[in-house]
Amino acid sequence: MKLDNYRIIEGQHLKLSELSTEATDKTSKEEAAVRKAALQLQLFNLQERLFAEDQQSLLVVLQTRDAGGKDGTIKHVFTGLNPQGVRVTGFKEPTELEQRHDFLWRVHAHTPETGMISIFNRSYYEDVLVTRVHGEIGKKDTEQRFEQIRAFEKALESRGTRIIKFYLNISSDEQKKRFQDRLDNPEKHWKFSQNDLNERKFWKEYTLAYEEAITATSTATAPWYVIPADQKWFRNDLVLQILLKTLEEMNPQFPVVDFDPKSIVID
Amino acid sequence: MKLDNYRIIEGQHLKLSELSTEATDKTSKEEAAVRKAALQLQLFNLQERLFAEDQQSLLVVLQTRDAGGKDGTIKHVFTGLNPQGVRVTGFKEPTELEQRHDFLWRVHAHTPETGMISIFNRSYYEDVLVTRVHGEIGKKDTEQRFEQIRAFEKALESRGTRIIKFYLNISSDEQKKRFQDRLDNPEKHWKFSQNDLNERKFWKEYTLAYEEAITATSTATAPWYVIPADQKWFRNDLVLQILLKTLEEMNPQFPVVDFDPKSIVID
Repeated sequence: MKLDNYRIIEGQHLKLSELSTEATDKTSKEEAAVRKAALQLQLFNLQERLFAEDQQSLLVVLQTRDAGGKDGTIKHVFTGLNPQGVRVTGFKEPTELEQRHDFLWRVHAHTPETGMISIFNRSYYEDVLVTRVHGEIGKKDTEQRFEQIRAFEKALESRGTRIIKFYLNISSDEQKKRFQDRLDNPEKHWKFSQNDLNERKFWKEYTLAYEEAITATSTATAPWYVIPADQKWFRNDLVLQILLKTLEEMNPQFPVVDFDPKSIVID
Repeated sequence: MKLDNYRIIEGQHLKLSELSTEATDKTSKEEAAVRKAALQLQLFNLQERLFAEDQQSLLVVLQTRDAGGKDGTIKHVFTGLNPQGVRVTGFKEPTELEQRHDFLWRVHAHTPETGMISIFNRSYYEDVLVTRVHGEIGKKDTEQRFEQIRAFEKALESRGTRIIKFYLNISSDEQKKRFQDRLDNPEKHWKFSQNDLNERKFWKEYTLAYEEAITATSTATAPWYVIPADQKWFRNDLVLQILLKTLEEMNPQFPVVDFDPKSIVID
């Protein structure tokens, strides 16, 4: 599978309507299931090295529409990592205190320290999406925020944080199906929110806002990947592979110590 | 296996020398390996309910001597949980800022919110252990801290946080073996610290400090378990079972919603 096919190149103008929300690859569901355990073991081992090395860190940003699969991706891709080295932070409506700060303030506190993988379930991108869709900020403010985001991500990178951003791309029909599933299944009732139905009315506006935001902020070092996400198995397989490739590129190493282990005697 | 055998009853005066650091049960290593996957799946499902219910939380405190197996327990028992619902916090030497506060200040910020499991890799108990061993606090201050700890834990419980505390009980020989293993294995060099050898000289003082602290703070609702921890498989199996039993007692439920799912139509 050519992972770069899903990556938005810097300067490329994203049109979501041109990208499929369905599995576009010949990869079969069975093949993905077969390789999953092996890939997760590789991921686990790379995470262990990242933690031991304690020099770099990884920030994974997950964005999508409601019911787009953020929780499912975390559950299926990241379960199996050592929880000591991974931290998930969800960003909901800003609190009153958070609103009294710039929009990057609350997220900055949760960026990964060296050795760690941080996963943002929603992120600072909400502040150029939901706010934009509902007209809370105009074009000029939005562009200023894009610039602030690029500078913020650059500052993180310069301190050893690698950033990958996933937009899980689902269709309107698939969202409808998932909402209905939440209504039909008592164990999923708690996931249903009337507000999600209200937001669904802004489907086209969200499409435009995502296109704008991703186009403006996909850079060589903090790229966006647009993941066809109607099929959960395909989404999970693709995110897992991209993560793995990224960690392989980061190439973390067990540290070399500055003492001679042979010289030490334990009483 | 009778899990209560490992629990310190409120008022019981703990003598570590009377407790074995070795697997005391007839459970075989093979049997533990066979049941591990099933127990972890149960744990995963209970965690999902805890997260969905969003009313209670669980705090797991891990304490032991150096090389006692905190990291290994986290790796082997908690890997497999959904990282969205679990958070590990390690407490090292307090920073300058932390030292300018009472000893519970820095840990309070990391207690679990509703729906979450928090694991403390070391904890506020260090402030009645390492400080006590090195004479930084006297008997009177230590007893005051015990009282503060009991009050703190009670306050957490009253807000729905269940607390379980594990002391991983290893022998001096086993610690020596593990230190040597860290020296012999290049991938473990980074875990070796000269300071651990210095602390090893205070073996007996730590024994006393642990006995005092556990005796003073094992309560009906925030119990200590002393886990024979020389054999890693036995330790992991026992911690996993105690966790599971605790979550079963908490009995989290998927929430019942206050709307009629059948009445909702999705456009």
